[in-house]
Amino acid sequence: MSLSSLLSRIGPLDEKAMQAARARQDSLTKPQGSLGRLEGLSVQLAGITHNPMPSVTHKVIITMAGDHGVVAEGVSAYPPEVTPQMVLNFLRGGAAINVLARCAGARILVVDMGVASKLEPHPSLLSRKVACGTGNIAHGPAMTRQQAEQSIRTGVEIVEAEIKRGLDIVGTGDMGIGNTTPSAAIASLLTGQAPARIAGRGTGVDDAGLQRKIGAIEHALAVNSPDPQDGLDVLAKVGGFEIGGLVGVVLGAAANHKPVMVDGFISTAAAMLAVRLAPAVRPYLIAAHHSREEGHGLMLDWLGVKPLLDLDMRLGEGTGAALGILLAEASCRILAEMATFSEAGVSGKDA
Amino acid sequence: MSLSSLLSRIGPLDEKAMQAARARQDSLTKPQGSLGRLEGLSVQLAGITHNPMPSVTHKVIITMAGDHGVVAEGVSAYPPEVTPQMVLNFLRGGAAINVLARCAGARILVVDMGVASKLEPHPSLLSRKVACGTGNIAHGPAMTRQQAEQSIRTGVEIVEAEIKRGLDIVGTGDMGIGNTTPSAAIASLLTGQAPARIAGRGTGVDDAGLQRKIGAIEHALAVNSPDPQDGLDVLAKVGGFEIGGLVGVVLGAAANHKPVMVDGFISTAAAMLAVRLAPAVRPYLIAAHHSREEGHGLMLDWLGVKPLLDLDMRLGEGTGAALGILLAEASCRILAEMATFSEAGVSGKDA
Repeated sequence: MSLSSLLSRIGPLDEKAMQAARARQDSLTKPQGSLGRLEGLSVQLAGITHNPMPSVTHKVIITMAGDHGVVAEGVSAYPPEVTPQMVLNFLRGGAAINVLARCAGARILVVDMGVASKLEPHPSLLSRKVACGTGNIAHGPAMTRQQAEQSIRTGVEIVEAEIKRGLDIVGTGDMGIGNTTPSAAIASLLTGQAPARIAGRGTGVDDAGLQRKIGAIEHALAVNSPDPQDGLDVLAKVGGFEIGGLVGVVLGAAANHKPVMVDGFISTAAAMLAVRLAPAVRPYLIAAHHSREEGHGLMLDWLGVKPLLDLDMRLGEGTGAALGILLAEASCRILAEMATFSEAGVSGKDA
Repeated sequence: MSLSSLLSRIGPLDEKAMQAARARQDSLTKPQGSLGRLEGLSVQLAGITHNPMPSVTHKVIITMAGDHGVVAEGVSAYPPEVTPQMVLNFLRGGAAINVLARCAGARILVVDMGVASKLEPHPSLLSRKVACGTGNIAHGPAMTRQQAEQSIRTGVEIVEAEIKRGLDIVGTGDMGIGNTTPSAAIASLLTGQAPARIAGRGTGVDDAGLQRKIGAIEHALAVNSPDPQDGLDVLAKVGGFEIGGLVGVVLGAAANHKPVMVDGFISTAAAMLAVRLAPAVRPYLIAAHHSREEGHGLMLDWLGVKPLLDLDMRLGEGTGAALGILLAEASCRILAEMATFSEAGVSGKDA
């Protein structure tokens, strides 16, 4: 299927399902609205899934990894070999995302979208390498337009395969030393904000590192002149393979009426590109949390989404998404399992 | 055991356990601090439990119910018969707290501390009625000083019995039509803020109801003149039986090195009284969420605690605590289950 035909499949939420879910929420044994955002979340999930009583049983976190040529500019506190090392850590179950996915009862799919080094085959690793790392965006494009399209299409295929296996919600996750730099470049372009307002310390660069990072983004935008109206051009010129893959995950989920729990900074940059490619994707997004990374709030504002959590997290991998999925599940269980006033024989509000 | 000897048992957190937990967090495969508040939460739990690797496996939510004479002033949107009706709903598993406790894997203990009507015996109901509802605080004291002490002592006994059954964390919960009114009176006294800045719409009173509620609190404070330095006097004059029971739960948990996940407005008023009685209780408290109820932020500020969640919830019952417990469990599983840099063979931060 071509990308454009996929984009055209993304339709509006189901208003009838939302109305039914809203009516049921209002009939449950609690003052109307007293469960706050859990109520709205269940209604949104009803609209997304076209189901007045949605369930969040089959949960998948797709964590995509890629490397970034821009690390040569000294933009990260960690060396690039950490990308494959952390992929191995994911596969062995020892990373934060493994623990939090277990807490959320979610399965994890680890995807090599463009790690620079060769990864040994592993039964739990999906190898979909588009290339061995991106080009250095401070000096040229991250990838070709064709590779950008391939990375998105790969993400679509991956999420559609997961949907066939059973998927009620998908959480996005990322791993890639240096990837806050392309993400900040994308966010800077789409929001129109200066790189200095978007770029943060990522894994923890010092002041000099932050200045190098801002400089690298400024160079990347100047050298590549991406067209902010063309999401594919932005991805190709200043993006990353894992970012492109996540764009595809978002688009593929929305096209199939599945909610997307968006993780932090990198995932939000991917979600922004997905919205640029298909504005109809927006209501399928749930922002899991407000990352501590500098410009994330501006990015969420641009998307028009309000994060569920604000726990000063800034790790990525899908860790925020895993916690957000716990809340999504709770919201749907409230809708499905609570008694109504009439079922429970509880008196209503005074007239 | 006398109340004063219990209070004297509440000691400081274990610094050594906290240092060990902090050191382990810093050795795990993530940038230091990148899991934000989850990291600090695990360290706090280590200090509370005197265990460098605490676990949150046995989770209990204690939901205490009581009625309030002040409902005669028209301070609630719901009639008082909803208190026993909702207790039945808890016992049948149909209320929000039942659903969210299931999500958190927590058992619920429902306690009749002072429901006005007679409740039929039920295997899951703990009957510890101090009296059939409080007096109308707008005209006189809620209860005698002896009853206040009895309600606290009952809470201590209940939580200590639960600790014997196995308890790693306790969440507080409440049910009682009208109970935001005494809670606001307590908060107003302790914070020194006017009732109008603390009182909110509770279950959803209209403007006239809110004015009646503020007036009732002003009367309660004027008629009873509670001594804000004397927590027992405040509880007796403007409190409630379920509030007193929750004070006891907080004190009993802290005296036994167990963390308390404090729910919303009513539970926070109880936690404030516990801190007034024993300031050493403060570090044992974890604020689950910021309630939408008006003065809750001022109350949390007075306690000096930062809530984990802010989801516009205002239901009580322990619903916020149940979600907070999920985060507490996640924080401890991160500490216990993640691999360290050396275990995983992941390179550290560049020097």
